[in-house]
Amino acid sequence: MVKISLMIMGCGGVGRQLLHHIISCRPLHAKQGVRLRVVGVCDSKSMVAANNLLDEELNDQFLLQLCKVKSSGSSLLELASFCQCQLLSGQEIASKAIEVAATLRKSNTGLTLVDCSASSETIGLLSKVLHLDCCVVLANKKPLTSSLEDYDKLVSQPRRIRHESTVGAGLPVISTINRMLSSGDPIYRIIGSLSGTLGYVMSELEGGKAFSQVVNVAKKLGFTEPDPRDDLSGMDVARKALILARLLGRRINMDSIKIESLYPIEMGPDVMSVEDFLVNGLPLLDEEIRNRIEKASLNGNVLRYVCLIEESRCEVGIQEIAKDSPLGRLRGSDNLLEIYSRCYKEQPLVIQGAGAGNDTTASGVLADILDIQDLFRD
Amino acid sequence: MVKISLMIMGCGGVGRQLLHHIISCRPLHAKQGVRLRVVGVCDSKSMVAANNLLDEELNDQFLLQLCKVKSSGSSLLELASFCQCQLLSGQEIASKAIEVAATLRKSNTGLTLVDCSASSETIGLLSKVLHLDCCVVLANKKPLTSSLEDYDKLVSQPRRIRHESTVGAGLPVISTINRMLSSGDPIYRIIGSLSGTLGYVMSELEGGKAFSQVVNVAKKLGFTEPDPRDDLSGMDVARKALILARLLGRRINMDSIKIESLYPIEMGPDVMSVEDFLVNGLPLLDEEIRNRIEKASLNGNVLRYVCLIEESRCEVGIQEIAKDSPLGRLRGSDNLLEIYSRCYKEQPLVIQGAGAGNDTTASGVLADILDIQDLFRD
Repeated sequence: MVKISLMIMGCGGVGRQLLHHIISCRPLHAKQGVRLRVVGVCDSKSMVAANNLLDEELNDQFLLQLCKVKSSGSSLLELASFCQCQLLSGQEIASKAIEVAATLRKSNTGLTLVDCSASSETIGLLSKVLHLDCCVVLANKKPLTSSLEDYDKLVSQPRRIRHESTVGAGLPVISTINRMLSSGDPIYRIIGSLSGTLGYVMSELEGGKAFSQVVNVAKKLGFTEPDPRDDLSGMDVARKALILARLLGRRINMDSIKIESLYPIEMGPDVMSVEDFLVNGLPLLDEEIRNRIEKASLNGNVLRYVCLIEESRCEVGIQEIAKDSPLGRLRGSDNLLEIYSRCYKEQPLVIQGAGAGNDTTASGVLADILDIQDLFRD
Repeated sequence: MVKISLMIMGCGGVGRQLLHHIISCRPLHAKQGVRLRVVGVCDSKSMVAANNLLDEELNDQFLLQLCKVKSSGSSLLELASFCQCQLLSGQEIASKAIEVAATLRKSNTGLTLVDCSASSETIGLLSKVLHLDCCVVLANKKPLTSSLEDYDKLVSQPRRIRHESTVGAGLPVISTINRMLSSGDPIYRIIGSLSGTLGYVMSELEGGKAFSQVVNVAKKLGFTEPDPRDDLSGMDVARKALILARLLGRRINMDSIKIESLYPIEMGPDVMSVEDFLVNGLPLLDEEIRNRIEKASLNGNVLRYVCLIEESRCEVGIQEIAKDSPLGRLRGSDNLLEIYSRCYKEQPLVIQGAGAGNDTTASGVLADILDIQDLFRD
């Protein structure tokens, strides 16, 4: 029986879904000879941890209660009465996590720190835990998109860190690229649609609808962030692009990425309210996008909002794409990645599917956790 | 530094390409802290092995010489003068391999037996080596498509066996399915085009060409086996289907798979020569296929030769597929797999790319070898 001890950071949708997955997979994992021990869970302010880390864990009933408390918007501190566990907050959290890592590294269950938060403040803790020969699994993009110095610390022991869900949720993007790289198949071009929202918008535009209309419908359908400019800015895609570029060995930072925003600065959140942007701003952008689509169409192409990594280029923005290519044929909100390498030279390796959602993202995190199990065998 | 000792079975195109990849990846793997030690290589009749397995390996110069000898069609025995190594043949091979496994299991380099042959006779050896806590990596489909009893022996320690290249060459099919299964995302439907040859044939037919014409062209282009009936029989796709079905937990054998052959028994190899089949047999099949294509077209569908696994069904043959689906849009000789699960319910997870070729297949094998490295850490 392989035991993997987990400390989970972040109790948002992904973190809670992960806890549910862990619990519902218990019989499956038992059959595979794996036992996942959740020894701690934190949100941005507090932490609950098992009392005696080597022998105890947070039991499933308690974890379900924790999910209930967090989904109702309450604090972890509300759980005080439910279990014999430690409750910590503020500065105590990081020191507790490090203490847990130092204790468990000597046991044969190790510790895996799972970052399902959206915080940029977890990097220090992640590095320290890795330094103690523990493992890290990330759904959080921020630690990997900070400075190169931080990045290098995180990936210095590449087998101890997994981060599939930082790009394309549960889609096997990172694992596939890692497989290709380790087998010496050099990747020379990656192009992909990595935003379900922008993928939906770009493919809807082909039907002749106006940009403003498509974005408004997407917002009504719940496909966008509350402020659609968070999608239209391209910043989320740029983060994914940076993660992929660094995985390919590029020594770059966010400011090296050419990012095309689908709205101009003068329509930014500092200038216009969401409502004003949707009603009065967006329609002003319709004509230019319409012209670009028509121009592309004359060349037999369509427009896609893509991440493109090739030679020294790392760009995020609208590109003309051949209608008759995997990306050109993409419809709806699926993510799609084309990878070109020595083995996939003329025709790319293509990975396509839902690239967002708590269920899918948490499944990707759980697959990563199971994938490091060999490090915890005797 | 992680050391993985390899014994490679099969010196055909894939085996030789694997040796080339291993050698050319040495600097890359050194950077990753991994050293691949080739301690033995066998073909169907002979084996070369390092003298002192713990300290020696077959050096790169010798391995290149071995590739040269084998690609010229000569025997491994020709290598006698090139190195201070052991040359064995016949029954000695299996006993030597087991001796190697027993010796190396006690070292921290273990042994990984890599089966790049096309033989159905390696199963016994593979099982024995696994039983000695060593690892197995397969490109050879036959060991996994034999009896359930043999299959169970091979997968009894699932982390010690990898076989990505048995389905779709280097495409991340098995690794993706394993990730999904281990994260508790139940797969309820797999449908895919897993033969580059049949994929090419089916998509060419859409242009209105006759079946006989398309097959003849495919043969001339080198897309088919020397006897195209080896492709048209569907047997190769059926083997892949069985491997996928068993991976999903189905307790079935080859004879449970419904296989549609694209030629009738009366045109089989026992009845007609290849030439006779191509010239006189095939044209007799044109009309029926033409009618099926037209009928599908009336429903807005196209025909694809697919492997389909769903509930109790495991079938290999022609199916009507929606024109506007990933499989329906597939052109040329790429493989494509659609996987439906809880996370990919309406829209499947799609993997597409070249599914054959020595380079791609050997890369898949090498990625599998690198993927088991954590089992060899201290």
